[in-house]
Amino acid sequence: MNRYTDSIGLTPLRTAIAEKLSAETGIGWNTENIVITAGAKQGLLDAAFALLNPGDEVIIIRPCWPTFPAQVLLAGATPVFVDAPFPTYIPDIGAIRAAVTPHTKAIIINSPNNPTGAVYDRVTLQATGDLAINYQHWIISDECYSSFVFTGERHESIVMAHPSVRSRTILVNAFSKELAITGWRLGYFAAPPEIVSAAKKLQSHTTSNANVIAQHAILHHLQVGDGSFERRIHQRLCDAHNAGLRILAGLQDVMPPAADGSFFFYLDLSRLLSALPAADPVRSTEDVARYLLEESGVACVAGSSFGDANGLRLSFGAPPNLLESGLKRVVDTLNSLKNRQAAA
Amino acid sequence: MNRYTDSIGLTPLRTAIAEKLSAETGIGWNTENIVITAGAKQGLLDAAFALLNPGDEVIIIRPCWPTFPAQVLLAGATPVFVDAPFPTYIPDIGAIRAAVTPHTKAIIINSPNNPTGAVYDRVTLQATGDLAINYQHWIISDECYSSFVFTGERHESIVMAHPSVRSRTILVNAFSKELAITGWRLGYFAAPPEIVSAAKKLQSHTTSNANVIAQHAILHHLQVGDGSFERRIHQRLCDAHNAGLRILAGLQDVMPPAADGSFFFYLDLSRLLSALPAADPVRSTEDVARYLLEESGVACVAGSSFGDANGLRLSFGAPPNLLESGLKRVVDTLNSLKNRQAAA
Repeated sequence: MNRYTDSIGLTPLRTAIAEKLSAETGIGWNTENIVITAGAKQGLLDAAFALLNPGDEVIIIRPCWPTFPAQVLLAGATPVFVDAPFPTYIPDIGAIRAAVTPHTKAIIINSPNNPTGAVYDRVTLQATGDLAINYQHWIISDECYSSFVFTGERHESIVMAHPSVRSRTILVNAFSKELAITGWRLGYFAAPPEIVSAAKKLQSHTTSNANVIAQHAILHHLQVGDGSFERRIHQRLCDAHNAGLRILAGLQDVMPPAADGSFFFYLDLSRLLSALPAADPVRSTEDVARYLLEESGVACVAGSSFGDANGLRLSFGAPPNLLESGLKRVVDTLNSLKNRQAAA
Repeated sequence: MNRYTDSIGLTPLRTAIAEKLSAETGIGWNTENIVITAGAKQGLLDAAFALLNPGDEVIIIRPCWPTFPAQVLLAGATPVFVDAPFPTYIPDIGAIRAAVTPHTKAIIINSPNNPTGAVYDRVTLQATGDLAINYQHWIISDECYSSFVFTGERHESIVMAHPSVRSRTILVNAFSKELAITGWRLGYFAAPPEIVSAAKKLQSHTTSNANVIAQHAILHHLQVGDGSFERRIHQRLCDAHNAGLRILAGLQDVMPPAADGSFFFYLDLSRLLSALPAADPVRSTEDVARYLLEESGVACVAGSSFGDANGLRLSFGAPPNLLESGLKRVVDTLNSLKNRQAAA
């Protein structure tokens, strides 16, 4: 059992994931649709290398996870950004349509979203699917945070909202977040057989199979798990989400985030920054991130990492006691920014 | 401990590997030289993507592991093959020099070799190093079979034979073969800091860290292991090598292989094939491989997979009883080819 598996994973694991995904989406998936990957990142990379040639364009909704454009560039293609602005961070369909050209090969969507926490509504998913059908491009749907929706509803994949996009969709997911095992690198994607076939060749020349220990462990979990671990993780994050929002409601000059999904609070700081005196050394969200680290001992990520000058991402995956005391310090520090003595 | 590690691996593991490699090569390596990869394949892929641009050429010694040219093509560069012919399968330095052009960016060498079992002598390694220095290209040295040399001498890396190539060498290795854990996907490479830095970015966008369980397990092994497991594996393969060669000495029309390293017997079938009647349905090494599978129940790989029409690769990694009975059937079947009734 320490030897190579098929480059796209153990057949029983692929079958178990097909069954899991069929149960979750209400759509039938077969073993032949599933590829086991070294984390969702490798699934996205496979998609990029399977689909893209130099000259191809890929529409990416911004703010975005920086790996999306990096992989498109690595495959020799060109990222084309469409901004999904504050406060909803849901892309406007007209803006996506305006970005389509004859070179458009794919669109990458990510709902629930990292970094914004946005959960795309059904109308947006359907319209995105219509565009892909009309202009004949692929949909790469990163659904890594599918277990973490806090609206009271369940995650809706684009293949559920618009079943006829399935033949042009690569649905990427992983166990990293759902089972809190990011370091194990065990992800998967579901796709039409021609993409599965390309990934099989590609993985045989890039990394071979995902780690075999992780494959067997996840297979066992899918066979015997009763969902209680996943429910406990979800409840913990739901509690953190609610407690965090109560604390962030104390922010002045910053609107509390919606944070419908994923495990990020994403703040727009444009109003706060414009309210600071012109001579203030804190001018950008990077400055704010550095200031929060120094003053509050809280690490967060400036929106510039995601292509958004105004954003600030905070994770609520931290343990409850650390999270609440940390967020209170964030609120106090941000609220005091306007009134403080200018720091050196 | 289930979380992400640094994309190039746990620092203590990188340190432990630097120490292991320093002991093995007699050259000092630091933590900053080491990248942990998802198997040697990912190390080679990192090297290709770190070094190559479209238009670049990479010299590959043929017969070769098919992943070498596949990765060069994936990086948009061009493989340039230099044949290392039977019976030594050691490349001629003049032939390598003749293949160098102004576009040559790197040479890939692999000693001990898959598929041929060749172990490059010091003069060849030194001359290969001289060429790299004179023409200013990189050396990608795949040393995955370094634990399996059967000449009575220890493995000699090109950085040992020619220490001044170190600043232009990426030395790739893995635990897959040495510890018989191919499915774990735990490899590493040693390289100058600029390559390590490129790999860190690259792995952060392709797969993240190698599986964290495997990293901790190997770290523990390097800390507490006394080398007895490795010696046992080496002895088992050494016994298989010797027993196999005794059996293969019975071959007619096929020269027994040297098999100085790796765990492959590589046979040149050109004399046997040319001795068959013109009407014989067995015309190629692929035909022979198929015939051996059907008649002897032995799976082997035709040389065409490695860019060599005449070769046939047999693995001696199989359990001893299976290996000896299988090899005897191979010898009987190959010897009977000339005299048999033509099969359908």
